[in-house]
Amino acid sequence: MNDTLVVTTFDWVPETPRGYVRDLRVRWALEEAGLPYRVESTPFRERAAAHYAHQPFGQVPWLVDGGRSIFESGAILLHLGQRSAALLPTEAGPRSEATTWLFAALNSMEPAILPMTVLEFAGFTPDMPVTQPFEAFLKARLGHLEPVLAGREWLAGSFSVADIAMADALRLLNESERLAAFPACRAYVGRATARPAFIKAHADQLAHFAAAD
Amino acid sequence: MNDTLVVTTFDWVPETPRGYVRDLRVRWALEEAGLPYRVESTPFRERAAAHYAHQPFGQVPWLVDGGRSIFESGAILLHLGQRSAALLPTEAGPRSEATTWLFAALNSMEPAILPMTVLEFAGFTPDMPVTQPFEAFLKARLGHLEPVLAGREWLAGSFSVADIAMADALRLLNESERLAAFPACRAYVGRATARPAFIKAHADQLAHFAAAD
Repeated sequence: MNDTLVVTTFDWVPETPRGYVRDLRVRWALEEAGLPYRVESTPFRERAAAHYAHQPFGQVPWLVDGGRSIFESGAILLHLGQRSAALLPTEAGPRSEATTWLFAALNSMEPAILPMTVLEFAGFTPDMPVTQPFEAFLKARLGHLEPVLAGREWLAGSFSVADIAMADALRLLNESERLAAFPACRAYVGRATARPAFIKAHADQLAHFAAAD
Repeated sequence: MNDTLVVTTFDWVPETPRGYVRDLRVRWALEEAGLPYRVESTPFRERAAAHYAHQPFGQVPWLVDGGRSIFESGAILLHLGQRSAALLPTEAGPRSEATTWLFAALNSMEPAILPMTVLEFAGFTPDMPVTQPFEAFLKARLGHLEPVLAGREWLAGSFSVADIAMADALRLLNESERLAAFPACRAYVGRATARPAFIKAHADQLAHFAAAD
């Protein structure tokens, strides 16, 4: 039992974030690697001290691997990458490249995407002038990512945790049609989300939250 | 000469970002570790194809270590951490904890801070309604970080690259007085920026840009 990886996510979330809660990234990686795991739940509505002990920001997921508890989807992806060559190349050069792109997904792209979610949640619409600086920032970043993805199938040679983080971040934009002008980005999201491991992880997350309704 | 680490930053930047350009994080880490390095420049105004080959988003810094070129300040910090125990603990548990907090700084805190910079750059002031959801998001994150920092000197036991990323991200908030209600966060920034390695890195960056005026 100590050998089984345990992913903790919320017991329930509202409709909107379903399919996007970040345990998806961890489920996806575990499915890609074929590592055995089970999923546990923590209350969404009343977050106890035990929750903050594992995840200081009161978010999910966290991963327990033996005696170690790890939070931050990026840190979990890197940790799992160190356990499986299906997630992170073992050769030093490609491994460094995949790690770099993992950080790029989380610190160069996702922070350009997040404000859209904050604005939409607060009721601002894309036609309002206040959204313009954020739209411009996002478009600049996508404009730089586009030629990268036009020239390669995956970010670091072979599929890696960098693609899990990047495709999951871009997925949200594709649904809001913001990738329409960036065909290579859009095609990349299509390739990534067509992988059986993503499809299973996504279906499993939806089923997990649906079971709590 | 191949043994010397080379950090590339812009040749010049406007006044406002001086002292905050991200080569600071790399300089700071290199000073903490006592690793020999030199700094090279790339044009700020006309960014050539060679720039994008090293840094696909047209940003800085990047680090050349022997035959390897690495971008993303987070990836560079992790890379340097693997070269020096002064930056990342060698024992597995503390090393995992420091890595987790490095991701937390870059993906849980910095994306909550970045919108403030975008809004200020676009001329929005904190009293405007559009800034409210972002202020609320940031305050929630700081509210979770506060008890963590009230209970420890550094994020992962001893000083690590996680503190470089976190303190550098929080520093901006301290200058805009947004840390006034978060005394543990403010004291942490004070501790971090009082380190000789930070002071030297900061002075060196200011001198680098001043020399180009």
